[in-house]
Amino acid sequence: MKLVIAIVQDEDAPKLVDNLMKNNYRITKLASTGGFLKSGNTTLLIGVEKEKVDDVIEIIKKLCKSRKQVTTSPSPTPMTGGVYIPYPVEVQVGGATIFVVDVDKFEKV
Amino acid sequence: MKLVIAIVQDEDAPKLVDNLMKNNYRITKLASTGGFLKSGNTTLLIGVEKEKVDDVIEIIKKLCKSRKQVTTSPSPTPMTGGVYIPYPVEVQVGGATIFVVDVDKFEKV
Amino acid sequence: MKLVIAIVQDEDAPKLVDNLMKNNYRITKLASTGGFLKSGNTTLLIGVEKEKVDDVIEIIKKLCKSRKQVTTSPSPTPMTGGVYIPYPVEVQVGGATIFVVDVDKFEKV
Ligand code: NI
Ligand code: NI
Ligand code: NI
Repeated sequence: MKLVIAIVQDEDAPKLVDNLMKNNYRITKLASTGGFLKSGNTTLLIGVEKEKVDDVIEIIKKLCKSRKQVTTSPSPTPMTGGVYIPYPVEVQVGGATIFVVDVDKFEKV
Repeated sequence: MKLVIAIVQDEDAPKLVDNLMKNNYRITKLASTGGFLKSGNTTLLIGVEKEKVDDVIEIIKKLCKSRKQVTTSPSPTPMTGGVYIPYPVEVQVGGATIFVVDVDKFEKV
Repeated sequence: MKLVIAIVQDEDAPKLVDNLMKNNYRITKLASTGGFLKSGNTTLLIGVEKEKVDDVIEIIKKLCKSRKQVTTSPSPTPMTGGVYIPYPVEVQVGGATIFVVDVDKFEKV
């Protein structure tokens, strides 16, 4: 038995949780913030058989991989003296940090 | 030294924390949600000597074991066209998921 | 690769997170409460190379070590019949509990 600890961006968490549950993985969601990834993030605990670890990591990669996204929402540009001009910007979104830890003993009661 | 990671239902958490502390176990409570168990749940971190792991698991089992409970609160029954009739229903409550992880190094400063 | 799980007091957390990030450590902050330490506490997950574990523990020790602090804020003294008299009191602050866990597999995607 292994415990997969996955730290993902908040915006990627719902579809990841959905997908993992559809694949019969059981997840606990911890509230977490900052540090590993710039914006708000979510920590998931996923208990899986050793043979399933790579499958779980594949799912996380597919849904949470760090990628570029074009956004057109106004971004604060201090250079323009407080006038916010909306224009398309490419931002890095997503990304995940995954720790796999060995489990000595697993019990469901 | 072992780290016991226990995910229990919110409603079972207070009496479990109480009981563990009375038995001199030290606990950290993490905010957690959904996934492993249907309703809101709480994740506890309990650092214990190897020899105490089974005692901790016994306490969790005793207080959090999945069990049936009869409730008489009205339950929404879509079959009756929106009219909610209060009647006794047997629901599954409690339950816990426990991971025991080996600790390389433990420090209290 | 090791995972350092550090439970520190809320008031020590910001300067610890700051210091660790300045030293290029990556941190995830989990919301946590009570148990290990009297007041509110914060749980940090820090993924580090084996060789860096002692350095991380030293930083935590330096910034979070349990210490005495003199406070002059009024403390409720039931003995005086509800009259709160402000006077200097020495209180224990800080303190940290650290678990180091081995990581089977680490991925950043
Ligand atoms: Ni195993
Ligand atoms: Ni040990
Ligand atoms: Ni390693």
